[in-house]
Amino acid sequence: LAQRVSRFGTTVFSEFSALALKHQAVNLGQGFPDFDGPDAIKEAAWKAIQGGVNQYAPGVGARDLRVAIAEHAQRFYNHAVDPDTMVTVTSGATEAILDVILGLVDPGDEVVAFEPFYDSYDANIAFVGATPRYVPLRPPDAEHTTWWFDRDEVRAAFSPRTRLLILNSPHNPTGKVFTREELEFLGNLCAEHDVKVLADEVYEHIVFAPAKHLRAATVPVLADRTVTVSSAGKSFSLTGWKIGWIIAPPPLRDAVQRAHQFVTFATASPFQAAMAVAMRLPDSYFQELTALYTAKRERLLAGLRAAGLQAFSPEGSYFILADVTGYGFADDVAFCRHLVTEVGVAGIPPSVFYGPEHRHLGQRFARFAFCKSDGVLDEAARRLREKL
Amino acid sequence: LAQRVSRFGTTVFSEFSALALKHQAVNLGQGFPDFDGPDAIKEAAWKAIQGGVNQYAPGVGARDLRVAIAEHAQRFYNHAVDPDTMVTVTSGATEAILDVILGLVDPGDEVVAFEPFYDSYDANIAFVGATPRYVPLRPPDAEHTTWWFDRDEVRAAFSPRTRLLILNSPHNPTGKVFTREELEFLGNLCAEHDVKVLADEVYEHIVFAPAKHLRAATVPVLADRTVTVSSAGKSFSLTGWKIGWIIAPPPLRDAVQRAHQFVTFATASPFQAAMAVAMRLPDSYFQELTALYTAKRERLLAGLRAAGLQAFSPEGSYFILADVTGYGFADDVAFCRHLVTEVGVAGIPPSVFYGPEHRHLGQRFARFAFCKSDGVLDEAARRLREKL
Ligand SMILES: CSCCC(=O)C(=O)O
Ligand SMILES: CSCCC(=O)C(=O)O
Repeated sequence: LAQRVSRFGTTVFSEFSALALKHQAVNLGQGFPDFDGPDAIKEAAWKAIQGGVNQYAPGVGARDLRVAIAEHAQRFYNHAVDPDTMVTVTSGATEAILDVILGLVDPGDEVVAFEPFYDSYDANIAFVGATPRYVPLRPPDAEHTTWWFDRDEVRAAFSPRTRLLILNSPHNPTGKVFTREELEFLGNLCAEHDVKVLADEVYEHIVFAPAKHLRAATVPVLADRTVTVSSAGKSFSLTGWKIGWIIAPPPLRDAVQRAHQFVTFATASPFQAAMAVAMRLPDSYFQELTALYTAKRERLLAGLRAAGLQAFSPEGSYFILADVTGYGFADDVAFCRHLVTEVGVAGIPPSVFYGPEHRHLGQRFARFAFCKSDGVLDEAARRLREKL
Repeated sequence: LAQRVSRFGTTVFSEFSALALKHQAVNLGQGFPDFDGPDAIKEAAWKAIQGGVNQYAPGVGARDLRVAIAEHAQRFYNHAVDPDTMVTVTSGATEAILDVILGLVDPGDEVVAFEPFYDSYDANIAFVGATPRYVPLRPPDAEHTTWWFDRDEVRAAFSPRTRLLILNSPHNPTGKVFTREELEFLGNLCAEHDVKVLADEVYEHIVFAPAKHLRAATVPVLADRTVTVSSAGKSFSLTGWKIGWIIAPPPLRDAVQRAHQFVTFATASPFQAAMAVAMRLPDSYFQELTALYTAKRERLLAGLRAAGLQAFSPEGSYFILADVTGYGFADDVAFCRHLVTEVGVAGIPPSVFYGPEHRHLGQRFARFAFCKSDGVLDEAARRLREKL
């Protein structure tokens, strides 16, 4: 066992997926839809398979998908992307994140990120021998209608050794969508300290009005220093196809590509062909996705609240955090274990998305995914109402 | 740019694939077939896609594929593999190799490997801050009918800091298939020094009689210390699907799984379902694959020799090394550039698969892939005969 992995057990996603299965719990844990994306995408994959698109794709990704990614960036964000010098296709966003960290962060460097965080950030920072500096997002309160951060805490997290800021918006698991003003504040800080930004935007198409997703790379002060990571899984309800990508200014793309070529080298060719079709779906597809998730958000919020839980309405992503203090459990992990074994509902305990210093802040909550069919959401609500 | 990637430019595969395209060269460079595997596998993928196998697979891999991998190990090698505690499915063998190195090797450790090596070994060793110790394989000569190694050189490469031996058999690019006696010698050395083994066996089904592939993990002295990496790409002529796997005793599987979960987390679900079908194809499929490649090896060997090249007959893999000294080029890179631009045939210069110390040993050769249709092999032979 190498030291770098010694403190990482099984991911919480694998652990709670297995628990949910064992106890036949309604699974609102790991974030994957229990419905699939459009048939047109599936048929495009089959066409590619039948048509002989079955050998290694170029390491940077199939050109047609890179072009489609650039078109999509232009269409939705006015983000000018050159498909040949600014895009790398990856085997999911998880690989993309590792590529960025391998390509940009040296041992001894520091990486600033917000808590709660997607757990691979923390592991990947450890993999390269860097040190994380975490700043907690704070829940809505009398003065804040959404999750927020203390600017002084962010300033204090930066140092001469800071190399990278990780910015996840829409944010998993709080559902926060960072505002232009927040991005500008963070961008100025990064400019001051010559820090690069990893913008993880995999929930870019799951945002609820009046919130609006802003691509970090289109904020002028961030443009030259931002590496955007996204993926097809969430936007097209095909999480199991594992197609992600990186968009970055050419010098940064070059750095992450050097890492990528020795991480997976290339990504499944037929699904790249299919995702080029997906990225070109008409606006109506994306509007319907938003409408679908807006309704599901309301449905699960209502269900959680009917069960007596104080649930925060997310601005984006397909997750809801609920306050679980007051149920008499030692922490969120104990609460979530009880929930899966006794109530028959699986959620994710978010304290695992915090570093040791702020772990207690996460112990107040449980995370529930609403990327599930209405029947499943209703059954979860019923169980919570009756057994919690 | 992080330091760890600063000395890695574009992989030679990407470079020569692009060059081949530009010059419309017959591409015997990167090792991918220009024909696809069986329709039954493609249809199984489509069935999985249509049947809704489109969300995240378990991080360790779909259970049915893990079972099929275990059955395959039993069938071909009498290798007893528990699908639940000894297997991890990865996004190709390249990812698997990184997982193993991340999971087992600490900064400052040493890794012993043979030259020439698959280039990601060298990059991955650098990624984790370890030091490679390379031992060159020597070409056949008056005393050796196959590529061989000097046992004293191997012994000298081991030190108290050695953590891992990388063993690639059948070997890319020499085509060497390591014998039982060689594996036992290496195994004893590893036992003496308490060293683990990464056995990269992706060409396991491309071996030519009388040579016979021996799974390293079934050699008793290696059993407890060996992590086997293989993949579906070469065995089923679907390199673009990127399904690989790791087989290891439970404690070593646990270590690499901890890394894997933060590298790609999971691998494309529909292709996992399809590869479970592939791994259970009858023996006749594998016999036909061997027969196919035996004929192609003869065809390309004959073509290269007719063009005046001294070509070594490989015992396994789908690559042939040819001696390119005597053509007046400074080195293999210069020769291969000439070949692609002036002769219209792309090969790979193997000196990039050597460390700086022994690079000159690789400069004598060029590598040609014979996983191509007969017409392509014949056209390459014609161009070499007429223009070299
Ligand atoms: C590999 S799990 C990816 C992230 C996600 O879906 C989750 O947070 O549940
Ligand atoms: C990613 S290239 C994989 C190895 C191979 O096919 C080659 O050596 O050409």
